[in-house]
Amino acid sequence: MINKFCASPLWECSQTLAAVAQGRKPAETVIRNAKLINVCTGEILPDTDVAIASGRIALVGNAEHCIGESTAVIDAQGQYIAPGFLDGHIHVESSMMSVGEYARAVVPHGTTGIYMDPHEICNVLGLDGVQCMIEDAKRTPLKTMVTTPSCVPAVPGFEDTGCFIGPKEVAETMKWDSVVGLGEMMNFPGVLSSSEHAHGELAETLKANKIITGHYSMAETGQGLNAYIASGVRCCHESTREEDALQKMRLGMYAMFREGSAWHDLHEVAKSITQHKIDTRFAVLISDDTHPYTLLSQGHLDHIVRRAVQEGIDVVTAIQMVTINCAQCYQMDHDLGSIAPGKCADIVFINDLEKLEITRVLIDGKTAAKNGKLTEELGEYRYPEWATKSMRVRGTITPESFRIPAEGQEVTARVIEIIPERVGTFERHIKLRVQDGQVSSDTTQDVLKTAVFERHHETGKVGFGFVKGFGIRCGAMASTVAHDAHNLLVIGTNDEDMALAANTLIACGGGMTAVQNGKVLGTVPLPIAGLMNDKPLEEMSRIVENLSAAWKQIGCSIVSPFMTMALIPLACLPELRLTNRGLVDCTTFQFVPLFLPD
Amino acid sequence: MINKFCASPLWECSQTLAAVAQGRKPAETVIRNAKLINVCTGEILPDTDVAIASGRIALVGNAEHCIGESTAVIDAQGQYIAPGFLDGHIHVESSMMSVGEYARAVVPHGTTGIYMDPHEICNVLGLDGVQCMIEDAKRTPLKTMVTTPSCVPAVPGFEDTGCFIGPKEVAETMKWDSVVGLGEMMNFPGVLSSSEHAHGELAETLKANKIITGHYSMAETGQGLNAYIASGVRCCHESTREEDALQKMRLGMYAMFREGSAWHDLHEVAKSITQHKIDTRFAVLISDDTHPYTLLSQGHLDHIVRRAVQEGIDVVTAIQMVTINCAQCYQMDHDLGSIAPGKCADIVFINDLEKLEITRVLIDGKTAAKNGKLTEELGEYRYPEWATKSMRVRGTITPESFRIPAEGQEVTARVIEIIPERVGTFERHIKLRVQDGQVSSDTTQDVLKTAVFERHHETGKVGFGFVKGFGIRCGAMASTVAHDAHNLLVIGTNDEDMALAANTLIACGGGMTAVQNGKVLGTVPLPIAGLMNDKPLEEMSRIVENLSAAWKQIGCSIVSPFMTMALIPLACLPELRLTNRGLVDCTTFQFVPLFLPD
Repeated sequence: MINKFCASPLWECSQTLAAVAQGRKPAETVIRNAKLINVCTGEILPDTDVAIASGRIALVGNAEHCIGESTAVIDAQGQYIAPGFLDGHIHVESSMMSVGEYARAVVPHGTTGIYMDPHEICNVLGLDGVQCMIEDAKRTPLKTMVTTPSCVPAVPGFEDTGCFIGPKEVAETMKWDSVVGLGEMMNFPGVLSSSEHAHGELAETLKANKIITGHYSMAETGQGLNAYIASGVRCCHESTREEDALQKMRLGMYAMFREGSAWHDLHEVAKSITQHKIDTRFAVLISDDTHPYTLLSQGHLDHIVRRAVQEGIDVVTAIQMVTINCAQCYQMDHDLGSIAPGKCADIVFINDLEKLEITRVLIDGKTAAKNGKLTEELGEYRYPEWATKSMRVRGTITPESFRIPAEGQEVTARVIEIIPERVGTFERHIKLRVQDGQVSSDTTQDVLKTAVFERHHETGKVGFGFVKGFGIRCGAMASTVAHDAHNLLVIGTNDEDMALAANTLIACGGGMTAVQNGKVLGTVPLPIAGLMNDKPLEEMSRIVENLSAAWKQIGCSIVSPFMTMALIPLACLPELRLTNRGLVDCTTFQFVPLFLPD
Repeated sequence: MINKFCASPLWECSQTLAAVAQGRKPAETVIRNAKLINVCTGEILPDTDVAIASGRIALVGNAEHCIGESTAVIDAQGQYIAPGFLDGHIHVESSMMSVGEYARAVVPHGTTGIYMDPHEICNVLGLDGVQCMIEDAKRTPLKTMVTTPSCVPAVPGFEDTGCFIGPKEVAETMKWDSVVGLGEMMNFPGVLSSSEHAHGELAETLKANKIITGHYSMAETGQGLNAYIASGVRCCHESTREEDALQKMRLGMYAMFREGSAWHDLHEVAKSITQHKIDTRFAVLISDDTHPYTLLSQGHLDHIVRRAVQEGIDVVTAIQMVTINCAQCYQMDHDLGSIAPGKCADIVFINDLEKLEITRVLIDGKTAAKNGKLTEELGEYRYPEWATKSMRVRGTITPESFRIPAEGQEVTARVIEIIPERVGTFERHIKLRVQDGQVSSDTTQDVLKTAVFERHHETGKVGFGFVKGFGIRCGAMASTVAHDAHNLLVIGTNDEDMALAANTLIACGGGMTAVQNGKVLGTVPLPIAGLMNDKPLEEMSRIVENLSAAWKQIGCSIVSPFMTMALIPLACLPELRLTNRGLVDCTTFQFVPLFLPD
């Protein structure tokens, strides 16, 4: 597709590039003395220069004749150069940062382009929210290609979201310059059942000649996967086993190997190429969801490339997986993904192939980052007030709001048992005592009262349930990062702390918090749609770490509890979930009562 | 780009495909028990079925559940299946056959799609002629993707053609459904010099998001090649040396390895991948120009794949080079080039990987050819009268028309010396005797009088010269296949035979002929634009063979003399050429006098 993400379209500068390549005009920038990681042929070529003009590459080879008085010469001093890294599937909201701050975090790690699925903000603020993120991105050098969120709400009819996306909305966004495709089609049941809604969205994307990205998380790789791919889905990042990724590639689907902060698929999935002698052009590395701490301590795609190498993937192959393979997946390889004449001059300097230390990043021929830092301050982007005041909960939340009435002495409740570091849950049936006509949390069984308050339209709808597995002994935690509707989720041992947690987030416009005995121990305010904050990476990482300490203090010892917590309302994952409309059996897709019949 | 060459766009049948893949609807056709040549992963997978509906693939794997009462089942009986072969660059006119007859010749050999550059007809009949060929193609199952001829005339100012193509015409054709890109940009001097004309054509193609195909025939692979690629040219079939193709691939250009009837580049060019351990995704096999005899005796892309294997290329790699690599070059890989769900069901059955015998060809899920023959008769397409009466020579040609006047006793003439089986010529300076105030052919020195008559607009312009190297002892030959303007070219030992040869072609609407002593020994009539005939392959091959015999009879013993002859007027090749405007020095691009000063 026509790339709207470069300094100038090729047709405006081809005459200049031809002149520069032959020394008739000086290059704007020349890189000298580099080792080229040639992702086209899979070779490393020594002593290579690159001449750049109009943001694009004019020549690769010996560029001595391209240097004029006005030319900026960068001596690579024998460092490696690779094409800028592309993340083929990423939710910026998972970083809890604005796109600007996200770019500030990842560009120095070599990321020059992302394929952003602004799925979370869309659930809260709709396409207006998506447009805010697009505007936010414009102040950064990071090429931010957008895929239109396809599944808003994730499971229609089971929750209240801020917005609805259907074929009409998809068709509308396909006209936007920033949109290159459809975001992960999580509604694979809809695709498999030939639903009008799902196939309508696919059709609008195909008609616009854009790319459909996938999310096929079933272990079945036969009929269902074939049906899904035959429907036009071009790539999928939901492979957790060797055979998942291998079968996708064999069926001509780009297998996106994920290594996010919470989902470590690479160890298993890498085997699809290390254990099989196959052409790897359909293999791509992506991050999906990355948290501030991971970005700060490990990096972004540079980290994932290192991980791929640790798993036995050849380093040049791994770099192809974040460059040319991704660009070919999106049919943007004529502009992105390789260091070759005519392509955008998005170039990463790598000190050492083992450590994969990124020392400099060029985007559109300009040095965007050097030694771990952006070279220029970002402009400011302020999200509009409607985007930062998204907490619209009906009435006032008090301890009484959390009351779960019941009759008799004892009830048997359907309890959501979480599985640490996994996305699934179990449905457990646990006996709870009734006191004063209500059921409370039972810390002796690690069963905690949970509520989800609708927060988009002041409908007052609240769902109640119980969760097991967090280990909290005293206190409460709340979050507006609660996939995918991002309603207000509260979990706690007592109603007072739960009310305090809820009201703390309402007051700060959303976020995550932990409280105990009437005291707020830690809060991550996320005023942008209740999902993001415009603070820089280091500060976000520190605030999140504070909250982690608070979680430990209230007794929760699992890793990344907020990630696990955030999936409690996600009704497209098995087995039992709680939305603002109630408990959902996610194997039969039915609402079920909280208490089992006697 | 959106593929207009399939039975139905994916968005119209995705629901059906999903249903078929899961057995909810029966497939229209199921292939059972095949060995799949998986070009996505580069593997051969045994025991594979393919389910087909709406002309597309619904499932690859076990398709037992896709078979219903109405399903046609094809038992492959362990044969190999590969994606339909794609020829990435081809001039149908070189076959001297209509597109219909060409399709009848190549489809049984496994060719399901061609990227046709109707360059020759465009020089004669302009875009109206191109549209005739597009109409002609519509009666065939062959997917005929068109690239707009970019260089009409080939060398502006040096010859008279029937038509002119510039940026405006390119822009217009980019709106046509059949057009997928710009045909070979032979005007590389224009690209390198940043000319408005050449870059204007490139720009119109890029703006339409289509592919620019190339023709860079220089040995220089540094500044010039970089400039050419940086200008947006995506592929090039003009590599004759290992290093040409290797450097193109390293610079991110698709290197199209040519093995045509007259140009046997593969032996050398294959080394770029057999002698280097490189990723071969940028390597493509193409035919460029193929004659009836080659098609009949050796085949088409099947022959070229066999040749590639002979040159040491792995057979699966070679098949990738005529399938997925080509489809990716044209960014049509979402529809063409692999056997995978959602793709067009263009499938080739191969009996034996060594002989590469094609037993059946499916196009859009229908059996288009079986055991060497199309399964259905082609409909008729009649080229309009203006297309079959294209000989517009001014006045009447008589022996006197060939008189080359001169003064004195002797002159030193600039003579074009041909190099058998090569496209180049040498400029030789040879003394010729003057008799009766004119210079004649001198068979003792093998120097033959040559004339090129403008034949498009009755301008009466004629160019005269001498050629050396054909060895004709008595007689004349003429051709309207005379690149690229396709004026009327006549070579002979005496003016009477030359006039007879010319008038023979004028009478039959163009073609090729050989005469001797007032007798026509053989003629290939090519009434369609003076380039093609609507006779079937076998007949064309026989007629051409007859003419070959006639050439031998008049004394010409070189291989494929008509190919060598046809290039005499092609002023973009070194060193000396003759057009209807006169002798051209093709190293300095200047007209030069026939006789050197004393």
